[in-house]
Amino acid sequence: MEHYLDNSATTRVLPEAAEKAAFLMTEGYGNPSSLHTMGFAARQAVEEARSLVAARLGAEAQEIVFTSGGTESNNLALFGAALARKRLGNKIVTTAAEHDSVLGPCRELAKWGFQVVELKPDRQGRLPEEALLEAIDGQTILVSVMLVNNETGAIFPVEAAARAIRRKKAPALLHVDAVQAFGKLPFTPKKLGADLVTVSAHKIHGPKGIGALYVGKGVRILPHVFGGGQERGLRSGTESAPLIGAFGEAARLLPDPREALRQVGALNALLREKLRELPDVTVHSPEDGLPYVLNFSAGAVRGETMLHFLAQRQVYVSSGSACGKAKPSHVLEAMGLPPQQVSSALRASFSRFSTREDVEALVQGVKEGLERLARG
Amino acid sequence: MEHYLDNSATTRVLPEAAEKAAFLMTEGYGNPSSLHTMGFAARQAVEEARSLVAARLGAEAQEIVFTSGGTESNNLALFGAALARKRLGNKIVTTAAEHDSVLGPCRELAKWGFQVVELKPDRQGRLPEEALLEAIDGQTILVSVMLVNNETGAIFPVEAAARAIRRKKAPALLHVDAVQAFGKLPFTPKKLGADLVTVSAHKIHGPKGIGALYVGKGVRILPHVFGGGQERGLRSGTESAPLIGAFGEAARLLPDPREALRQVGALNALLREKLRELPDVTVHSPEDGLPYVLNFSAGAVRGETMLHFLAQRQVYVSSGSACGKAKPSHVLEAMGLPPQQVSSALRASFSRFSTREDVEALVQGVKEGLERLARG
Repeated sequence: MEHYLDNSATTRVLPEAAEKAAFLMTEGYGNPSSLHTMGFAARQAVEEARSLVAARLGAEAQEIVFTSGGTESNNLALFGAALARKRLGNKIVTTAAEHDSVLGPCRELAKWGFQVVELKPDRQGRLPEEALLEAIDGQTILVSVMLVNNETGAIFPVEAAARAIRRKKAPALLHVDAVQAFGKLPFTPKKLGADLVTVSAHKIHGPKGIGALYVGKGVRILPHVFGGGQERGLRSGTESAPLIGAFGEAARLLPDPREALRQVGALNALLREKLRELPDVTVHSPEDGLPYVLNFSAGAVRGETMLHFLAQRQVYVSSGSACGKAKPSHVLEAMGLPPQQVSSALRASFSRFSTREDVEALVQGVKEGLERLARG
Repeated sequence: MEHYLDNSATTRVLPEAAEKAAFLMTEGYGNPSSLHTMGFAARQAVEEARSLVAARLGAEAQEIVFTSGGTESNNLALFGAALARKRLGNKIVTTAAEHDSVLGPCRELAKWGFQVVELKPDRQGRLPEEALLEAIDGQTILVSVMLVNNETGAIFPVEAAARAIRRKKAPALLHVDAVQAFGKLPFTPKKLGADLVTVSAHKIHGPKGIGALYVGKGVRILPHVFGGGQERGLRSGTESAPLIGAFGEAARLLPDPREALRQVGALNALLREKLRELPDVTVHSPEDGLPYVLNFSAGAVRGETMLHFLAQRQVYVSSGSACGKAKPSHVLEAMGLPPQQVSSALRASFSRFSTREDVEALVQGVKEGLERLARG
C-alpha cells in the first residue's frame, strides 16, 4: 500500500486528464496552428482548455498564456515585466522564500543592473506586511510574491503588496507565483490585485510539462521565447495540445477549494496532533498556513535519511522542495532556523485524495525511524 | 478515409509513445527530482529516454538537454551561445530561410547590438556554400543553419558552414536546427561539425511539447530559463517525464532513415510525376531536397483556398509552415519567387506511414480544385 505524501512535488494525473492527452496524441493530433480541419479541431481543444483554466482562476480565457510549466511562467513574468518596465524604474521586490524559478530570474536581472530586494520571512515562515510596505517605493517596477510557500505552506500577504504598490504610487506590476495555491485556496487574480499569476498543471493532478501565466487584460509584458508568435506572441512554440487538454481536464475536475480545505485541514490537524506525541519533533509550518503542506523536523535524523527510511515503507515525503534536491532549504534558512533543524527537515504534502491511513503510516514510520535511526 | 499529408507540421503519436506517456502520468508519476523511490523511477524513465534520443542522434546521453520543443531549443541555443561568446565577437550568421524560432531570437539579439547576417537561398531554395564562406569571419561567434528547410525540403550545406568556421578561424559555435531532418536524413552532430543541434518529438511521431538540444561535450552556453537547475542547469523546470518518455519511445521506433528515405522518395517521385500532368502546377522544392517535403503552386488559386478545398476531401496539407499561419511564406519570398507563386503555395509533407493512396487523393483533389476554383 503506497502512501504518497509528496503532492507539493507532483501529483498523480487524473485518468480523465490522461485520457484527454492520449486522445489528442493519437486521434486529434493536428497542429493547432494548421489551417485545415484537423488543425481547427486541435485549436478548439486548446481553447476549451483555456476557458476551463480561466474559469477556475476567475479570469477570462484571453488572459491565460500556456507555457511549459511553473518555471517557464515565472521566467516569462519576471523577464517580461522587468524588461517591459525598465524605463520606469529599476527596483524589483521579492522574498527570500520564493521558488528557485523566481529567485533565479531575479538574480539574473540583478546581473543586468536591476536592484533586487529579497525580503525575509519570519521564524514561523510568515512574510511581515510592513516589510513589503517598506521595500516598495516609487522606483519599484516589479513585485513578485508567492501566495503559498511550497516548503512550509505559509500564506503570504499578496493583497498587502498590491496595497503598498498603490500607496507608494509605484510603477510596478505585481506577479504572484500561485503554483501551490491554485485549486487549493480560494482566490482570484483580481481580488489579489495581481497583474501576473503563475499556475501549473502537475500540482493539481494534471501532467508535468504544462502551466500557464495569467496576464491581466491591458498588462503589457515582453516575450521571453521568440518564434512563430503563438499565445498572442507571448510564448512561441507549437502548442502542446495533449498537455493543454489534460490541464483543462484537471482544472475542470477541481472541487470547490473550500470543501477540500476542510478535509485536508482535518488531515493536517491529525498529523500535527500525532507528531506532538513523538519526542523531539518540531513543526516548522505556521498554524495559519495552507494545510496541504506540513514541514517538520524529527530529532537530529537527517531529512534525507528519514526520507529513505520512510520510502522503504512506501511512505513518500520530501526533504525541502523536490527541485532543490539535496541542498539545504533556502526557505528554512531564510526563516532563521538553526542548521540542525534545516538539515533534518521533512515536508509532508497532501492532495484532496490523501487519507487518514496515509497520515497514520507516516507517523508510524517517523516513530520507528526515530527509534532506529537516532541510535545509528 | 483521411489523407494526412501535413507531417512537417506535426505527426500522429505512435501508440507505444502514447502508452508510455499514460503510464508515466498515472502510475510512474513521481517527480524525477524527488529523492524517494517514486522519484528515482521517474528519473530512470527520463534517463532511459535520454539514451534513446542520444543513440538516434549518434550522440552521448549527457549531450542531450530536454526542452519543451524545437522553439525552446532554438531559443536556448541562440541566446545561450551568443551571450556566452559575446566577448569574442559580435557577428551572427544565419539564413533568411530559417524557422521563425531561429529568426525571432536572431532579431532580438540584433536589438541587443549583435550584427546579424541573414543569407538568402537561391531560386531553388538551396543555400550557396560560397555565401557562407563569404559571411563567416573572425568576428563571427555563432552560425545557425538548418539542415532541412521545413517549407521546401532543401538540404542546407551545414558541413560547409563548419569548414568556413575552421578556415576563417572564427570563434563561432555552429547551431543546426535539425527538426525536419532528425530521423529522416542520416546525420550525426559530429559528422556535421555542429556544436548545438535542435530536435523535436512531434515531427517523428512523438508528442507536441517536448524537444531536445544537443550540446556537444565541452560546449559552453548559458541558460535561458532559470530555476531549480534541472538538465545540468541549462533548462530549469520539473522534467515532463511523460513527454520525455514518449519522445524516447518515438526515437526508439525510428526506422533506419535510409530505408524510409527510399520509400518516401518513391512517393515524392510519384507526386512530382502526377503533378506534371496537371496544367499550371509549379514545383518549388529542389530535386535534391529531402523527399519528405514537396512545395508547389497550383495555378493562381490561393494556397489557403486550395487547402480548405482539399480538407473537405480529407486531404490535409499546409500553405507555408503551420507556424506562419496565413502570412505569406518568408522562405519562398527569400527565394525570390513572384508574389502569385508565394500566395498559391502548398506544402505536402510525408511521413514513413504515408501511402500511394495519399498521393493519389492529393493529386485528384488538386485536379478538381484547379477545375472548380480557377473558374471562381
